[in-house]
Amino acid sequence: MYQLNENYQKLPGSYLFSTIAKKVEAFTRANPDKDIIRLGIGDVTQPIVPAVIEALHQAVDEMADAASFRGYAPDLGYDFLRRAIVENDYQKRGCSVSEDEIFISDGAKSDSGNIQEIFAKDCKIAVTDPVYPVYIDSNVMAGRCGAYDSQTQTWSDVVYMPCTRENDFVPEFPKQTPDIIYLCIPNNPTGTTITKAQLQKWVDYANETGAVIIYDAAYEAYITQSDVAHSIYECDGADTCAIEIRSFSKNAGFTGVRLGFTVVPKALTCGGVSLHAMWARRHGTKYNGAPYIIQRAGEAVYSEEGKSQLREQIAYYMKNAKVIKEGLLAAGYEVYGGVNAPYIWLKTPANKSSWEFFDDLLQTAGVVGTPGCGFGPSGEGYFRLTAFGSYEHTVAAIGRIQAM
Amino acid sequence: MYQLNENYQKLPGSYLFSTIAKKVEAFTRANPDKDIIRLGIGDVTQPIVPAVIEALHQAVDEMADAASFRGYAPDLGYDFLRRAIVENDYQKRGCSVSEDEIFISDGAKSDSGNIQEIFAKDCKIAVTDPVYPVYIDSNVMAGRCGAYDSQTQTWSDVVYMPCTRENDFVPEFPKQTPDIIYLCIPNNPTGTTITKAQLQKWVDYANETGAVIIYDAAYEAYITQSDVAHSIYECDGADTCAIEIRSFSKNAGFTGVRLGFTVVPKALTCGGVSLHAMWARRHGTKYNGAPYIIQRAGEAVYSEEGKSQLREQIAYYMKNAKVIKEGLLAAGYEVYGGVNAPYIWLKTPANKSSWEFFDDLLQTAGVVGTPGCGFGPSGEGYFRLTAFGSYEHTVAAIGRIQAM
Repeated sequence: MYQLNENYQKLPGSYLFSTIAKKVEAFTRANPDKDIIRLGIGDVTQPIVPAVIEALHQAVDEMADAASFRGYAPDLGYDFLRRAIVENDYQKRGCSVSEDEIFISDGAKSDSGNIQEIFAKDCKIAVTDPVYPVYIDSNVMAGRCGAYDSQTQTWSDVVYMPCTRENDFVPEFPKQTPDIIYLCIPNNPTGTTITKAQLQKWVDYANETGAVIIYDAAYEAYITQSDVAHSIYECDGADTCAIEIRSFSKNAGFTGVRLGFTVVPKALTCGGVSLHAMWARRHGTKYNGAPYIIQRAGEAVYSEEGKSQLREQIAYYMKNAKVIKEGLLAAGYEVYGGVNAPYIWLKTPANKSSWEFFDDLLQTAGVVGTPGCGFGPSGEGYFRLTAFGSYEHTVAAIGRIQAM
Repeated sequence: MYQLNENYQKLPGSYLFSTIAKKVEAFTRANPDKDIIRLGIGDVTQPIVPAVIEALHQAVDEMADAASFRGYAPDLGYDFLRRAIVENDYQKRGCSVSEDEIFISDGAKSDSGNIQEIFAKDCKIAVTDPVYPVYIDSNVMAGRCGAYDSQTQTWSDVVYMPCTRENDFVPEFPKQTPDIIYLCIPNNPTGTTITKAQLQKWVDYANETGAVIIYDAAYEAYITQSDVAHSIYECDGADTCAIEIRSFSKNAGFTGVRLGFTVVPKALTCGGVSLHAMWARRHGTKYNGAPYIIQRAGEAVYSEEGKSQLREQIAYYMKNAKVIKEGLLAAGYEVYGGVNAPYIWLKTPANKSSWEFFDDLLQTAGVVGTPGCGFGPSGEGYFRLTAFGSYEHTVAAIGRIQAM
């Protein structure tokens, strides 16, 4: 008789977004005339830019003709896309990442969930708290996190690095040395970041202690301050300790288009074994590449037209971030993030719990956000709003909050 | 210091296609004037049909407008696609599969590689021999296969079910009861199949012994004989023992478009735990859906136009299969497959090894195929040719083989 992976049973139910949905539904039923504004989930709302649309149409036409039709893609992704990535994301920033260190994928969620597979089961992971849940859940499924304590909402074998206003949202080196360190910078959910100098310390720490950093740079395009690194490979020595994961979801609005990539430097080895070779083997065995037409869309993101159109799109969202941040500050809120990221992280007023504030906001202002406690215990007492709505909705939502 | 997943180091190098490439390259260098015909890999050559191209263009245009733009897809996939699948692939064949039992993915390779994750590490897998390498390799990576014996080219903890001309390529119940049984029907690489009555016996066996069947039906569209099941759910009791994996790669030429799906019946439970719920959790944690525009392409596969155009495309490839099969029979070869699948599996003449015959074919006829030993020890002495080339190339290749 077959048996199941028992680690899955350890996962507590993922109630955050379903609880939100239920509360919103109940409110709507009780107040059918009230208009709800959603600044909760991290999904974009602006359409795909013209340069990318054009590339998609062109690639679709290529697939209609036997002479230009493309079947299975190369394992690591098409050269044209990997070349554009290297030139624009790395060479221009002085990082020596080469084309054959790039692995094209269907997105950062898949890669950040799958990457743990190449490590030993008894590696100890460290995460910032609050955190993007995929890092922990994928490790729980692999049996790497120990037991869950529903009281503290923590896993026995996970090292938590709290990021709160007390430490200015800068994670500190943990007391217990971890093996795998997840860093998402600029951060989801807090919208905060650390400087390049602070990141360099993490790279040095990893190289000194023999840890590997899984660096999630999904929000890199929103960085506005010059002392923040766009890639971990801007730091010295990162090629011997860091894997970088990138997404097209937020810089190009590809949440429904699906494209991302992961950089595994060839210099990254452990006991003489190349992590690049291992990730290549995983790609070759369990994945068959992103669609040709989507890889052409990715290439267009780096065209001059594409870059210019996307700069405007990001400016649009960052204008929303400014509206939220300044509007909340004017209303007396304590607010973080929103400068180098499309997320605003606010301290709930009057020491309310995250869920109490959620209810207040929904009932009084008809605005939906995300309770900070949904991202980890240190998120309790905080609340996330996103800048991905339309400008009109964002302005209206902040007006309502100010009138509360 | 972090450590790596040591199971990856157990995997022998994947030399099959790289050895083929090297041999072809050396031949081309020595014979620059000779024209090579490739009937080796299972990639399609015909373009995407007009109905699908039209759907792709339409979906691309939707993404260009904020009002019709789509962000993150629903976890299991879009309703419109799951509805089309249920109606066409299941209801029309009398199978009671429901929409919420369908999980849309980026292809059968990902799903067949990832599905093992939801099972316990000490489950024993059984595979037919020869076999699609992903089934074994993904289980090796999870530490489920024991040690590799390079002499016999087998894994100590894997149950092999030889499929050769001696048993008419019908796998027999193994002596040692397995937990997870992989069946690919119609089969890659042999191009052979088993009847619905024979499949029913496997379903009964699984239900009796408490095994689960991973049923890969990627070649279902090529079935021509009425006594062969298109889905395992045509068999009684399959919903309590079988997961079915489907691909759009071969029925619609989507090798470079990337779309597939997996059916996990809600009735499939183990110790009270739902495998459907587990697979849903995996999808929600480590995957973010197939692109919207690709899911619309999948929907068009099931439109009346799409179905009619694709019937023609499959007929085109099956005409190639007939050319190969009849041409080889006329030349005195012993030939299998090619009736319900796009693969022809031939016994090498004069007891030559698979690689000896590969060299003969390349040197004498300039035709490239795949040595059967690359798919497992029982593939030794066999050779695979595919029907996915152009008609002109296929006819020319067979002419050359007949002249050998």
